[in-house]
Amino acid sequence: MSDILHRLEAVIEQRKQANSEHSYVARLYAQGLDKILKKIAEETAEVLLAAKDNDPQHLRQEMADLWFHCLVLLAKQNLRLEEIFLELQQRFGRSGLKS
Amino acid sequence: MSDILHRLEAVIEQRKQANSEHSYVARLYAQGLDKILKKIAEETAEVLLAAKDNDPQHLRQEMADLWFHCLVLLAKQNLRLEEIFLELQQRFGRSGLKS
Amino acid sequence: MSDILHRLEAVIEQRKQANSEHSYVARLYAQGLDKILKKIAEETAEVLLAAKDNDPQHLRQEMADLWFHCLVLLAKQNLRLEEIFLELQQRFGRSGLKS
Amino acid sequence: MSDILHRLEAVIEQRKQANSEHSYVARLYAQGLDKILKKIAEETAEVLLAAKDNDPQHLRQEMADLWFHCLVLLAKQNLRLEEIFLELQQRFGRSGLKS
Repeated sequence: MSDILHRLEAVIEQRKQANSEHSYVARLYAQGLDKILKKIAEETAEVLLAAKDNDPQHLRQEMADLWFHCLVLLAKQNLRLEEIFLELQQRFGRSGLKS
Repeated sequence: MSDILHRLEAVIEQRKQANSEHSYVARLYAQGLDKILKKIAEETAEVLLAAKDNDPQHLRQEMADLWFHCLVLLAKQNLRLEEIFLELQQRFGRSGLKS
Repeated sequence: MSDILHRLEAVIEQRKQANSEHSYVARLYAQGLDKILKKIAEETAEVLLAAKDNDPQHLRQEMADLWFHCLVLLAKQNLRLEEIFLELQQRFGRSGLKS
Repeated sequence: MSDILHRLEAVIEQRKQANSEHSYVARLYAQGLDKILKKIAEETAEVLLAAKDNDPQHLRQEMADLWFHCLVLLAKQNLRLEEIFLELQQRFGRSGLKS
């Protein structure tokens, strides 16, 4: 199941060639970096509101939305998911600084 | 490598029993939900700033920070990583609504 | 000119009685607290992006949007503008703690 | 009382010459634009959390903090408070588009 992020990454990358009329992600790319960043800020606000409501079902949806748009940002900026995983891995190893 | 999220999830869960003097995550739990949500908002701001600077190395670090604190929030709210993956999986299947 | 905030406050208060079909503020009230908070989060993101672009005209517009929606939130929560001014005044007097 | 914003604006402008050891605002200037923007994002998150708690006293404080840091940003970017007021005034006049 954890492979879902890699599969999403692949689809999101493919959408760089897609028609923005038919693809939500292609539309985001076409609208540019600021639009993607605004979506991330919006989804973060939704995560905060859902968490304050102690509504786990809503939080699950909003967290999925946030991560989805993070993947779109990574693709837009030509960063690979593996690079984020590597960053997390390095901290994890590094004396557990942040754990 | 994608297993890093599950390994982090396990460590973050364990930190619920840890001494907040020695563990960053235990300290976040002790400070409560609002503190975790503020960290997520801060990391999102850092993601925006790094993306606007077109600084991929900085963006990679801030995205890792954002995801790390998202995992802490999920643990705090007793949501499993698999539930987020399932949510993403369902959308992915569902006619690619958001792709 | 600084009286514009008080005049806006009065209009926004009146909109509590308005038809949400004809009034943007009445529509925000009708959509509820979370909608207003999401707008504030969005406008804050726009402020960050405009500032990073070093685009003063855009920043001016987004800052005005942010303050406008802050006034709507205050009205929604039955807080008066004067109470915010008083809070600022008290800090200002209090040994300039934050200056 | 509404003059408090103009008086704060004047003090914040003066702090451009101040020693960052003794002045919070001078320290923010010295830390740069990103630091000021992060503070605005943080204060916005605090506004959201206080509003969700239905805690008017807390909301009042956080809103004051948010506006204070907005004034610091305006000074940093050489925008005058009057320009924000003018922007709000123009919308207000313009058929009440946003009211």
